[in-house]
Amino acid sequence: MPAMFAWQDADSQLRVVVAGSGGGIGRAIVEALLERPGVGKVYALTRRPEQGAAPGADTGSRLEQRRADIGSDDSLAALAASISAPIDLVIVASGVLHSEALAPERRSRDLDAAAMLEVLRINTVVPALIGKHFLPLLNKRRKAAFTALSARVGSIADNRLGGWTSYRASKAALNMLLKNFAIEFRRSHPLAVVAGLHPGTVDTALSKPFTGRVPAEQLFTPERSAAYLLDVIDRLEPADSGSVFAWDGQRIPY
Amino acid sequence: MPAMFAWQDADSQLRVVVAGSGGGIGRAIVEALLERPGVGKVYALTRRPEQGAAPGADTGSRLEQRRADIGSDDSLAALAASISAPIDLVIVASGVLHSEALAPERRSRDLDAAAMLEVLRINTVVPALIGKHFLPLLNKRRKAAFTALSARVGSIADNRLGGWTSYRASKAALNMLLKNFAIEFRRSHPLAVVAGLHPGTVDTALSKPFTGRVPAEQLFTPERSAAYLLDVIDRLEPADSGSVFAWDGQRIPY
Repeated sequence: MPAMFAWQDADSQLRVVVAGSGGGIGRAIVEALLERPGVGKVYALTRRPEQGAAPGADTGSRLEQRRADIGSDDSLAALAASISAPIDLVIVASGVLHSEALAPERRSRDLDAAAMLEVLRINTVVPALIGKHFLPLLNKRRKAAFTALSARVGSIADNRLGGWTSYRASKAALNMLLKNFAIEFRRSHPLAVVAGLHPGTVDTALSKPFTGRVPAEQLFTPERSAAYLLDVIDRLEPADSGSVFAWDGQRIPY
Repeated sequence: MPAMFAWQDADSQLRVVVAGSGGGIGRAIVEALLERPGVGKVYALTRRPEQGAAPGADTGSRLEQRRADIGSDDSLAALAASISAPIDLVIVASGVLHSEALAPERRSRDLDAAAMLEVLRINTVVPALIGKHFLPLLNKRRKAAFTALSARVGSIADNRLGGWTSYRASKAALNMLLKNFAIEFRRSHPLAVVAGLHPGTVDTALSKPFTGRVPAEQLFTPERSAAYLLDVIDRLEPADSGSVFAWDGQRIPY
């Protein structure tokens, strides 16, 4: 069992916020965090607490699940005011690729204004609001991180296949947002890192319709992806701020 | 006076669609196109025809101004059905940086969900809809181009100053959209180019509040920017498809 984050003081207890803890990866991240003794508190934000992490009996008061509408400025403001700062780590694990109403576009003729806007709202605007309210809470005195799930397909430079226009565009926009956050907070929080994280192809509801042709060894369980992502977060340095990293630590071009 | 696009057959007459022809740069582009004898037809799309180009008396039937709601799927579908294909060049010159209701964010605390969504709608979703309806009309038999006004500040890699989050994010998302269009149409339209264009800092209503500290030689009139952009379009090659170019022809990183 990993004892703690590599960047943690031996006597400190990390305080973490996970937004979107009701999703497959979010839930696994919360559970992986709670397995680390160095993590003192996890605030798990979800619209649906009943779908949140199912912690072991020894979790005690280390997990606080909070019902939150993470798309609402007011809800996030109230939430930020109610938790004990400073925060060491924020992980935005919310996001959408498809739903009953949203299907990733195969071709440009599939583009629909309302669907595209909804994907942009969930994948770009929601992380923007979370950053607005939680970045100022980051610990200024030691290393801290604000991370959000991005995606390799959000790389414009790496785009070889096309398709999934709304999703790709929303993640490219998210990458820009994270870069802006990195620039803004490097002065007030010189030890902080802002980074996008590509979790790999994970066997969750989000990717379910698209994993049929993914080789088994490339299809991660949420638990495996969460472990990889925490390892990546462990190794983040302030100089990495504004970049996007894959589950294996490789930097992804914009 | 430039005789024609460098990539035009001597006996052909280019057919061009300009969306957002009521804006400062859009209007100047329409006027510059009409000065070229090799341009046979310009369809100028704007919500406000009265603000469109004021062509000289010799324009004749070469200019067709069309009132269009370019944010509406139905409006664009009807428009695309009403014009004579094939089209040689599409220029999306619409976009917003600020309005009475929208101000570019200086810091993350300025972020507002509704404002960010509106910027994403205008700068990303509208070009997506225009591409959906007009890319299939591009000429397959000779060089053709689909271009949209992007911006240097839409480059994530080039972002040094931060701020203007919604605008920057919307242009990064647009760059991804254009990359996707390039990939999708390279098979059916191997001679076509899809590109983003950075017009420089132009003295228009869009940039008015932000040009005070721009040196005069770096602040273009719309006419000067339009001339530069047509020169860039002249020189586009199919291998450039999916990239973003500045007014001086330099490629801008993603």
